[in-house]
Amino acid sequence: MPPFSQFDSSGRLRHLITLDGLSDEQIRELLDRAQHYLAPRGSIPVRSRDLEGTTIANIFNEPSTRTRSSFELAGLRLGADVLNLEIQLSSRVKGETVLDTIHTLESMAVDVFVIRDAEPGITQFVAEHVYDHVSVLSAGEAHLTHPTQGLLDALTILRHKGGFRDLSVAVVGDVKHSRVARSAYHIFTALRVGELRIVAPEALMPPSGEMPDAVRFHSIEEGIAHCDVVMMLRVQRERMAQAAIPDPHDYHARWGLTASRLQLARPDAIVMHPGPMNREVEISSEVADGPRSVIREQVINGVAVRMAVLDTVISNRRKQGDNR
Amino acid sequence: MPPFSQFDSSGRLRHLITLDGLSDEQIRELLDRAQHYLAPRGSIPVRSRDLEGTTIANIFNEPSTRTRSSFELAGLRLGADVLNLEIQLSSRVKGETVLDTIHTLESMAVDVFVIRDAEPGITQFVAEHVYDHVSVLSAGEAHLTHPTQGLLDALTILRHKGGFRDLSVAVVGDVKHSRVARSAYHIFTALRVGELRIVAPEALMPPSGEMPDAVRFHSIEEGIAHCDVVMMLRVQRERMAQAAIPDPHDYHARWGLTASRLQLARPDAIVMHPGPMNREVEISSEVADGPRSVIREQVINGVAVRMAVLDTVISNRRKQGDNR
Amino acid sequence: MPPFSQFDSSGRLRHLITLDGLSDEQIRELLDRAQHYLAPRGSIPVRSRDLEGTTIANIFNEPSTRTRSSFELAGLRLGADVLNLEIQLSSRVKGETVLDTIHTLESMAVDVFVIRDAEPGITQFVAEHVYDHVSVLSAGEAHLTHPTQGLLDALTILRHKGGFRDLSVAVVGDVKHSRVARSAYHIFTALRVGELRIVAPEALMPPSGEMPDAVRFHSIEEGIAHCDVVMMLRVQRERMAQAAIPDPHDYHARWGLTASRLQLARPDAIVMHPGPMNREVEISSEVADGPRSVIREQVINGVAVRMAVLDTVISNRRKQGDNR
Repeated sequence: MPPFSQFDSSGRLRHLITLDGLSDEQIRELLDRAQHYLAPRGSIPVRSRDLEGTTIANIFNEPSTRTRSSFELAGLRLGADVLNLEIQLSSRVKGETVLDTIHTLESMAVDVFVIRDAEPGITQFVAEHVYDHVSVLSAGEAHLTHPTQGLLDALTILRHKGGFRDLSVAVVGDVKHSRVARSAYHIFTALRVGELRIVAPEALMPPSGEMPDAVRFHSIEEGIAHCDVVMMLRVQRERMAQAAIPDPHDYHARWGLTASRLQLARPDAIVMHPGPMNREVEISSEVADGPRSVIREQVINGVAVRMAVLDTVISNRRKQGDNR
Repeated sequence: MPPFSQFDSSGRLRHLITLDGLSDEQIRELLDRAQHYLAPRGSIPVRSRDLEGTTIANIFNEPSTRTRSSFELAGLRLGADVLNLEIQLSSRVKGETVLDTIHTLESMAVDVFVIRDAEPGITQFVAEHVYDHVSVLSAGEAHLTHPTQGLLDALTILRHKGGFRDLSVAVVGDVKHSRVARSAYHIFTALRVGELRIVAPEALMPPSGEMPDAVRFHSIEEGIAHCDVVMMLRVQRERMAQAAIPDPHDYHARWGLTASRLQLARPDAIVMHPGPMNREVEISSEVADGPRSVIREQVINGVAVRMAVLDTVISNRRKQGDNR
Repeated sequence: MPPFSQFDSSGRLRHLITLDGLSDEQIRELLDRAQHYLAPRGSIPVRSRDLEGTTIANIFNEPSTRTRSSFELAGLRLGADVLNLEIQLSSRVKGETVLDTIHTLESMAVDVFVIRDAEPGITQFVAEHVYDHVSVLSAGEAHLTHPTQGLLDALTILRHKGGFRDLSVAVVGDVKHSRVARSAYHIFTALRVGELRIVAPEALMPPSGEMPDAVRFHSIEEGIAHCDVVMMLRVQRERMAQAAIPDPHDYHARWGLTASRLQLARPDAIVMHPGPMNREVEISSEVADGPRSVIREQVINGVAVRMAVLDTVISNRRKQGDNR
């Protein structure tokens, strides 16, 4: 078997398992396409029938409101049929059975699998084994990757800042365990962000070899100083303990993004969070709901980005089919 | 913040949280519209594409067959996209997170939230905080309100009796804990029903200040005598104990609607029940399945009423948008 | 009440509860229609709007990936609205309440109920009580019947072998507890298969009066010798114990379909399995994934067969309506 590639034999995007390896140009094409799907708030969302006849299976290992709904609406607004399955794929992986589940669904003419699983490697494993005309999209994989989150983060910055190369972007919090941070790292380095900072207590920093192009900061005050973009990460209670931080209150005192700390960033800095937020833990409500917060726009952009990815992989498949 | 209103700045219905405060005319408009959606049994249900491009999120805190399916079909038959979410909103309400869930979904361009929750106040709380173009509909809230049930009950009576003002309507059973009874009270007083009776054991009567325009009866025989409409309520075992009724068998003996008791009502009286029924407890099967039962019609009318409400709030939103 | 019939007063298929009693001609009509819904792999599946305005309720007592998804996609690809309900109907059957659930849904204009339940008789019980224009389809009932599985098995054989009358078909494994085997027996005897064999350890054979037209074999080697079709059945661990087989490894050694055993069948024999497979228990991966396996085609044919059944019962209902 050749090494796994997300691209088809003509170099077009077929799967989206990770942002690692996508070129600046490939990312910009996806962001461009996503912009077509954005409508003014309160107006009817952009729709098409471009995916009519296409079947998407959303396979989530947990009841996920946010990402599952976003993918489901993206599919429906393109005219696809969407199947929701709550399956823990990785618990079926003894022997070959995860593939039997997948092969069964692809025999029912599922064209795109959207997969969230807690076990690293499952999504690529599936992508390696599906039929030629089938695509696999990650909807978040363990601590490793969440590519559509990276795309929506980039789209949000693009719409506010117009570009990436002059920007200083700070990713703050539990970077070590965060798939959001990893996807941010991949996309921002590909897009050649001016400066990328990771800002975390030592215990929540990724291993020293990882994210070589990011600058490391061990205090939030230094980390966000003069930044254009502050991306806060969700923190979990058990991670605080690893960083010797006794409780959420203490985490907020030392690592929370408050209005006064936000003064350290540029006056026009934007604040992002992938959600769901722990208010008054990693972020104060004053900031989350304040004028610099673009958190709701991230959600809007999430649907657009997912429509763009779905539309891209399906139209690439049609082009690939024409080649034969 | 101004006091909460279900109506937009032009006085048109925007949310439906309660029937309390709706005028006779507003209710009749909804009932008129609902009648358009009724088709003869066995024929294909009335459909339209009027809500194409609209997204409805059904948020239920429990697996609900009846009301959830009714709202889902109402949405689909109007051409909307329908998202089903089984979330206990109120358990997220610590701090602000219920609103974060809602804001996330409205950022995905959800236009209408249909909410069932066990905690009083949640539905209005959500309605107070959504964007201007978003509507919130209650699908049943604690013991307080179930407005589409009230509407379907009124529609059922209208279709059988042609009006309300000459009727005597008896609501029988656990009135105290019933959202169905409260919504019935609101709609029948607005529609100026001739006589509204609440019929219950003392322990299951609402507090004395509540439902001032209803006449209270403490025996089912007196309560349904010469009535045109008998609305039975579902009773729960733990409520019987409060009324010092030892078991379902005894409840049936003292408070159940039997064929012989039904003789006390008018010869053309209709029998209603919101479902699910406890057969041989609050109602005998002979009555439930008998010629005077309109229980299945209530379900039919439920879909029509929900289509009417959905269509109304969406078309009102469009009118409101035109005003700007 | 007249004895239950799956056919309407004009003899057309109305329900599909069992294959028992379907004629050769009726089965062939369904198979013919199913062939219209088959598309080459990777192409967009055949779709129509023939069931637009129709509502299908999938009522499954368990989270079923395979059959539920197959029925859901069959409905969506015909343009129907599909409602998914995870209800244990039989646990509601105390008194009449299973029927109240069904009557509620049919009052919402559900046209077709697709039911999987673990309790024998529930599906027919429902079919006996629905409105004249409503159809009930079994999606698998206890150990008794799984009619669309039988149809997809027959379609798979038809497409590979061109007919049935000259074939020897072996059904191998836990025949006693298998609804798949029972539906296979019904359809293959109706289609007058040349020879039908049931192959099982004595403890897993059906009672001696059952399946009178099948030849019984107590060893897999003899049972599949010179066969054209080998249908393997899923085995459950607790059944092995009944057959005094200590573990899956031992079951495989004595009853598993291996490549070497498959040599005993005809050179062009096909291998089938209803899924989900226990690999290296009743079937080796080498065989399951080998050139004679048609297991994935069974899944493809499953969607086509379910589309054919849905389309048939709905168009029969329309014809019946015209008669009145």
